[in-house]
Amino acid sequence: MTREYGAVTREILDELLSALGKNRVLSDHDGMEPYSWDETGKNFAVLPEVVVKPGNTEDVRAVMRIAQKHRIPVTASAARSGVAGGAIPLRRGIVLTTEKMNRILEVDPVNRTATVEPGVITNDLCKVAAEKGYLYAGSPMSTFTSTVGGNVATNAGGAKGIRYGSTRAHVLGLEVVLPGGDVLSLGGKIRKGTWGYDLKDLVVGSEGTLGIVTKIVVNLEPMPGRTADLLVPFRTIGEAVAATSKILALGVSLLSCEYLDQPSVLLTSRYVKYVYPFQDEAEAFLLIQVEGKDEETLERDCDKVGNLCYDEGAIEVFVADNRSDSADIWSVRQNYAEALRVKDPYFVSGDVLVPLS
Amino acid sequence: MTREYGAVTREILDELLSALGKNRVLSDHDGMEPYSWDETGKNFAVLPEVVVKPGNTEDVRAVMRIAQKHRIPVTASAARSGVAGGAIPLRRGIVLTTEKMNRILEVDPVNRTATVEPGVITNDLCKVAAEKGYLYAGSPMSTFTSTVGGNVATNAGGAKGIRYGSTRAHVLGLEVVLPGGDVLSLGGKIRKGTWGYDLKDLVVGSEGTLGIVTKIVVNLEPMPGRTADLLVPFRTIGEAVAATSKILALGVSLLSCEYLDQPSVLLTSRYVKYVYPFQDEAEAFLLIQVEGKDEETLERDCDKVGNLCYDEGAIEVFVADNRSDSADIWSVRQNYAEALRVKDPYFVSGDVLVPLS
Repeated sequence: MTREYGAVTREILDELLSALGKNRVLSDHDGMEPYSWDETGKNFAVLPEVVVKPGNTEDVRAVMRIAQKHRIPVTASAARSGVAGGAIPLRRGIVLTTEKMNRILEVDPVNRTATVEPGVITNDLCKVAAEKGYLYAGSPMSTFTSTVGGNVATNAGGAKGIRYGSTRAHVLGLEVVLPGGDVLSLGGKIRKGTWGYDLKDLVVGSEGTLGIVTKIVVNLEPMPGRTADLLVPFRTIGEAVAATSKILALGVSLLSCEYLDQPSVLLTSRYVKYVYPFQDEAEAFLLIQVEGKDEETLERDCDKVGNLCYDEGAIEVFVADNRSDSADIWSVRQNYAEALRVKDPYFVSGDVLVPLS
Repeated sequence: MTREYGAVTREILDELLSALGKNRVLSDHDGMEPYSWDETGKNFAVLPEVVVKPGNTEDVRAVMRIAQKHRIPVTASAARSGVAGGAIPLRRGIVLTTEKMNRILEVDPVNRTATVEPGVITNDLCKVAAEKGYLYAGSPMSTFTSTVGGNVATNAGGAKGIRYGSTRAHVLGLEVVLPGGDVLSLGGKIRKGTWGYDLKDLVVGSEGTLGIVTKIVVNLEPMPGRTADLLVPFRTIGEAVAATSKILALGVSLLSCEYLDQPSVLLTSRYVKYVYPFQDEAEAFLLIQVEGKDEETLERDCDKVGNLCYDEGAIEVFVADNRSDSADIWSVRQNYAEALRVKDPYFVSGDVLVPLS
């Protein structure tokens, strides 16, 4: 009987060391320990047999060839900020982290694209794009810690997903190293390609199971106009849900429309030391970001959304139109997972998804 | 040696007849002839051995089971308005047309979705959605003839693709009958699902090669605001291309930005009997649809786009802000393929896609 997977022997370790160099291969317990778990929590930790840190596509190809030859499982890993266990090496073997492949290779103003390596921190891409006058819209809640490669692997969403879609909507092209070391180039600096199977979008969200993404071409958007944030407490969950589907149908330019329930708000409120108005009475909150080309349009659209919320039973509508108020309001949404983890490191979190009906 | 594909024998025909009934099975030459070609032109015609017209998912399952049992190739067919030969039964066998599965099953205002069968004419869905105050944004140039199923099969684009994306961006859920008759339900009335492989989007654009789509859940958008159309002749192709990338970066709400070259305009102009200004001097035209929430915003954004075009060397900027002018301008773009076909029925057409750079 053949074993399903091989073990990482001294010989395999030597192959990896000679392919990548010793700075790029970790096999000691303490060095590997951080790669044994992600934000799912330490109770799901599995120690790999070796951690490799390729610096470029050729390094990744070498690792994949060695892994295939010896039947060693490879788990792709990036910032390990995921909450679904995707970066945990369940079958041990090799953890391949893209953290050293972290260059922003190009911002192309003509095609309105950026080309990056997978280990780039998402917020770094956002900053570089913003300096050139563009928005990289594929930023999830974990934008300050997660990587573009990790966002691609998980098809990460984020608050702006309502307007711009999840990560998949921003990925125009991918370079992928397949098991065995072959390199595929999928898509490119074009937005309307419709030939053949949509393999690019199959790789997005595949959590590294189909191959290792080594290069990413993303779409950049023009910068949005002025924004304002509305925080709206509702006495019941039902009212908040009913308001949501009507707000979405208003035709107002929304950048976000996030739902928060009372237990999450109460917990996070203590953690970030910022109290939401009516948080003891409101079963649910909506946190809505409205965009307007100018002050006047913005004000009118905020009024539209606000009035609709009142019609649906909102206790009050708070508008934050400056940066510090806005940051305070968002801090509750952004720190929920962390507040939860601090309270109970063994809590298993994840996204819940239900149709509006 | 086993044959790769079987032939449709009398026995197989009887099986199809007893599964579907005789109104749903065609095997005479004249009846089948229209199913032997699409807009690629008659010179690529291949006559199928039998044409089946299932009325529902169970019918499709029956056909796929019979086909698999006897190893008969199945080619999916809908309005046959495609220009890439996807509906031509290259290996003969069964043509399965979805034309009888043409019901709009539901418009759901809470989830802002519509559920349709694949044979619904795209424009019929647009109309029903519009009556309820929504936009179905996945309509290609062939909107009056093509079906939603055909749009899904080809991931059809269309002029509004620049704002709303190609068909894939509008498909939330699919019911697919696989070869052999199993039914898959992929996605649903949700917009942010990120678990598992993205099989829904793999089926979109697969031209019926992975299975037969029997039900489609699409996203509906709020209705756009007022629109105006700009027709802009440029003396050189280079100027038009340079202007395009700058227009896209303006941040103005664009519904379309179509490029037309002089030979296409001259040819179609004769066919639709509408003359574009400067069509003898302009190497290229841009046809731009701008959206504004109100008259004032629209006017200002049209000015922005117009001024930019002048800066890039436009000969003139024409603005059509009423329906009949707009229809005339668009008629040239919409009838190009037909004008070409009338001039030369053997011309092979297709979309050309190049990066802006």
